[in-house]
Amino acid sequence: MFEHAPTVEHLIKLLRRLPGIGTKSGQRLVSFLLKADPRYIEDLAKSLIELREKVFYCSTCFNITDSDPCSICRSEKRDRSVLCVLENPYDIIPIEKSNSYNGLYHILHGHLSPIEGITPADLKIKELLGRLKNGEIEEVILATNPTVDGESTAHYLVNILKPLGVKLTRIAMGIPVGGDLEYADENTMAKALGGRREI
Amino acid sequence: MFEHAPTVEHLIKLLRRLPGIGTKSGQRLVSFLLKADPRYIEDLAKSLIELREKVFYCSTCFNITDSDPCSICRSEKRDRSVLCVLENPYDIIPIEKSNSYNGLYHILHGHLSPIEGITPADLKIKELLGRLKNGEIEEVILATNPTVDGESTAHYLVNILKPLGVKLTRIAMGIPVGGDLEYADENTMAKALGGRREI
Repeated sequence: MFEHAPTVEHLIKLLRRLPGIGTKSGQRLVSFLLKADPRYIEDLAKSLIELREKVFYCSTCFNITDSDPCSICRSEKRDRSVLCVLENPYDIIPIEKSNSYNGLYHILHGHLSPIEGITPADLKIKELLGRLKNGEIEEVILATNPTVDGESTAHYLVNILKPLGVKLTRIAMGIPVGGDLEYADENTMAKALGGRREI
Repeated sequence: MFEHAPTVEHLIKLLRRLPGIGTKSGQRLVSFLLKADPRYIEDLAKSLIELREKVFYCSTCFNITDSDPCSICRSEKRDRSVLCVLENPYDIIPIEKSNSYNGLYHILHGHLSPIEGITPADLKIKELLGRLKNGEIEEVILATNPTVDGESTAHYLVNILKPLGVKLTRIAMGIPVGGDLEYADENTMAKALGGRREI
């Protein structure tokens, strides 16, 4: 069969292993890279190696970090009595941006999903229980996504954390600020009504 | 603002410059890479550098190649009297796979598009004219895509190549083999009827 150049075929094969990249988008990436500034490609290749060498997960909270414990876990300015449980490392960004949380984090690295075959053993739940042992943490905020899988993960955590006597809270769900009621789906609307507060 | 690690932020910034990659998919790629086999990442980084160092465009046909002229242009088994004009290097693959063409190629590297601001000067049209000068090529097959832009590029080429006296042909459009008439759009159906042949 015809091949453009072994290097090209090999790179496309590697790119196809990335999530969301197929043959077509792999070819598009190669076309882009062939026309790109050589310095950009060198920078990209160097960054990939640097990621492999320098970046890992915090052994305490499992956030992405280049130091262990991570900057949040070792900060003396953070409130060590509150722990916010998240599905993914990137969920930290909107929380930090909101300037309304100063506690610690714990990253589960996913959500429970019977369909995808993800069980509690696949998430950092054992490690979460370990962190609650010394009694320093008084409140656990369950901030998994308000999706079916995120909700069932939160429910599972409620069941296993309740016996420990720690305060458990769930982030509020409702109409997003700046959102339009007209376009709210029925589930969000139900949450917004059910969670209404007296003013 | 909170950052995960400078290496991560820098890599996401670089990945976002790739076509079709935004912040979200960039983050997803980094998450994938953090969990990937280190050998895979090294291979990927090495391939990127190799692409930059070894792969370029054939100076004759502008196909992707690691030798100049490319394997097709220098092959003695190819028919040098026919030239197939394509928009993109990857369009060669289905043609070669079809085992029904043994001529040469010329890659335009795009199509004319007033909306995207792509003019004849942006395509390898001057180079195409140069190849037709010595009279060796007797037929030019216009195999740009059967899209609005591909069609108008073909029309433009007809206008400038006609005076040279070379035979000009356009690939046939119609119902794809194995396709279902029920799902054919009206334009394809019109082409299939208009291009009907006596049997």
